[in-house]
Amino acid sequence: MIANNPEAVKNIACIGAGPIGGGWTAHYLARGYNVTTYLHDVSEIDGLNRLLETAWISLTEMGLAPDASMDNLKWTTSLEEAVANAEFIQESIPEVLELKQHLYQKLGEIVAPNVVIASSTSGLSMTDIQANCSTPERTVVAHPFNPPYLLPLVEMIGGEKTSRETVDWTERFYKVAGKAPLVMKKEVPGFIATRLQEAIWREALHMVANGEATVEQIDQAVVNGPGPRWALMGPCEIFHVGGGEGGMAYCLDQFGAALKLPWTRLIAPELTQELRDAMVEGCVEMCGDADFSSLSRKLNSGLVEIARIKARLANAEQSGADKGD
Amino acid sequence: MIANNPEAVKNIACIGAGPIGGGWTAHYLARGYNVTTYLHDVSEIDGLNRLLETAWISLTEMGLAPDASMDNLKWTTSLEEAVANAEFIQESIPEVLELKQHLYQKLGEIVAPNVVIASSTSGLSMTDIQANCSTPERTVVAHPFNPPYLLPLVEMIGGEKTSRETVDWTERFYKVAGKAPLVMKKEVPGFIATRLQEAIWREALHMVANGEATVEQIDQAVVNGPGPRWALMGPCEIFHVGGGEGGMAYCLDQFGAALKLPWTRLIAPELTQELRDAMVEGCVEMCGDADFSSLSRKLNSGLVEIARIKARLANAEQSGADKGD
Repeated sequence: MIANNPEAVKNIACIGAGPIGGGWTAHYLARGYNVTTYLHDVSEIDGLNRLLETAWISLTEMGLAPDASMDNLKWTTSLEEAVANAEFIQESIPEVLELKQHLYQKLGEIVAPNVVIASSTSGLSMTDIQANCSTPERTVVAHPFNPPYLLPLVEMIGGEKTSRETVDWTERFYKVAGKAPLVMKKEVPGFIATRLQEAIWREALHMVANGEATVEQIDQAVVNGPGPRWALMGPCEIFHVGGGEGGMAYCLDQFGAALKLPWTRLIAPELTQELRDAMVEGCVEMCGDADFSSLSRKLNSGLVEIARIKARLANAEQSGADKGD
Repeated sequence: MIANNPEAVKNIACIGAGPIGGGWTAHYLARGYNVTTYLHDVSEIDGLNRLLETAWISLTEMGLAPDASMDNLKWTTSLEEAVANAEFIQESIPEVLELKQHLYQKLGEIVAPNVVIASSTSGLSMTDIQANCSTPERTVVAHPFNPPYLLPLVEMIGGEKTSRETVDWTERFYKVAGKAPLVMKKEVPGFIATRLQEAIWREALHMVANGEATVEQIDQAVVNGPGPRWALMGPCEIFHVGGGEGGMAYCLDQFGAALKLPWTRLIAPELTQELRDAMVEGCVEMCGDADFSSLSRKLNSGLVEIARIKARLANAEQSGADKGD
């Protein structure tokens, strides 16, 4: 049995302080939780502070919880101290299976068995991660999208030994904590979003490798074409709308044959030195003098606006539905 | 030599009045042009009027040109009348090569040779389309993204007999007309954006076919995950930002090996009756009572907002650059 109701959780431990662990720290602080963040090394504190400063600007624009404060953050380099009074643990250490297995073995020893441990892993399976853990039933994958404090997606899946209760409890917890959890049916490498993103990425690499498009052309094609739609509707709904009154059925019956056209390549291209350099130089040319920090602020500020638009659209739909519209 | 400067064009003929031809009609009217739209059959007028009504709401929100008016539209079922005083022709008839070849042969006979004819084709090559045209040098592909009155992308490429002057003139014309033209280097099936979109679409079909994700999960993964970023930045720039201070180089050097992971499938799945039905039913469940018209209005209203955000971000960047920021 999990100790508390998801609604009652107040104290969270974040293990790891990179872009993902730090991003989770920012998210939970903004939602009014007390957060204790474990640093592998004390030198990581500067990076964490910079990340929190950037994140807090967007989080303030989005609206903080009434009791949210950066003062509710503690950090420590002691794992025992980090998890001492945690009611939920979000793990975001590097993607090395041996490191994760070792950590989960340790956490199994020092964390009460009725506390959920969720892993931000983007590619490893919980069946593998929980292999050496004495209490695997309360461990689960909960993969966010970067930055975790602005994009709501959390892809969830248990390992073979994860209990149903853990998955259900964690799904409810994320809803309470302002995220959009998505419980998958099967353990699939890359989950959903990363697989779809990879499909685009590979095709883009092929086009650059074949001299068919530049890096900048690829990005312009997305941003001026399908990109704005994907902020608002997924690929299935877009075809459903694109089919007009006939919807998805019209699309598939009409264009099903086109599936076999030679659009998009079949295997990942060889990442030659040439291709690597072309990708890097293309990005440098495209972005000119803009450095990482200004690009990142620009992206964040746009994402805030898009989140607001979506909330307005959802409210309009809801009030339409309330009126029987 | 093309007759006028791109800036001097005032009269446009749109050949075809489906979603694309009608969408172009709306766009050019909103930009203050006189438009004559050719209907294959008089029965198409109701569909065109409905499309224009929907489009005009969004176009008014985006801001009309001073002299824009729906009164500047004429329609006709006579091809000769449609092109009689056109200074630019936008062709958007069905994607059947024989139909297009026949039309371009006819247009070659009745349109002065110094007027550009641009095809909205999404999949055919201009080398094939212009095969029977007596004046192929002024024909060019100009593929928009749906809806053409809200998404700025126009992918351009000439056929083997297209003149360089035609491509350059048409690129300038689209900039004057408020579009984002992208001149490709090679004739590639699907151009750029459709290829990338197809890559996602095929992987989504595989996941549904394998029972790994539902239609709704796929759409939620995109909308709550990478989607909002793609409205603002292309896939290359996103990895460039995702790499932190190290940019794209860090990403490729760190994750290059992951290219070969089994993320995304290699060939298009068989579109079985089962898969077809699963896709259709998934969309119907996901969208509930919402019909095409309300989904379409919702998408449009969001796209308007995103276009505004992008303009604000570009202005902020520009004024930053002006200050030497």
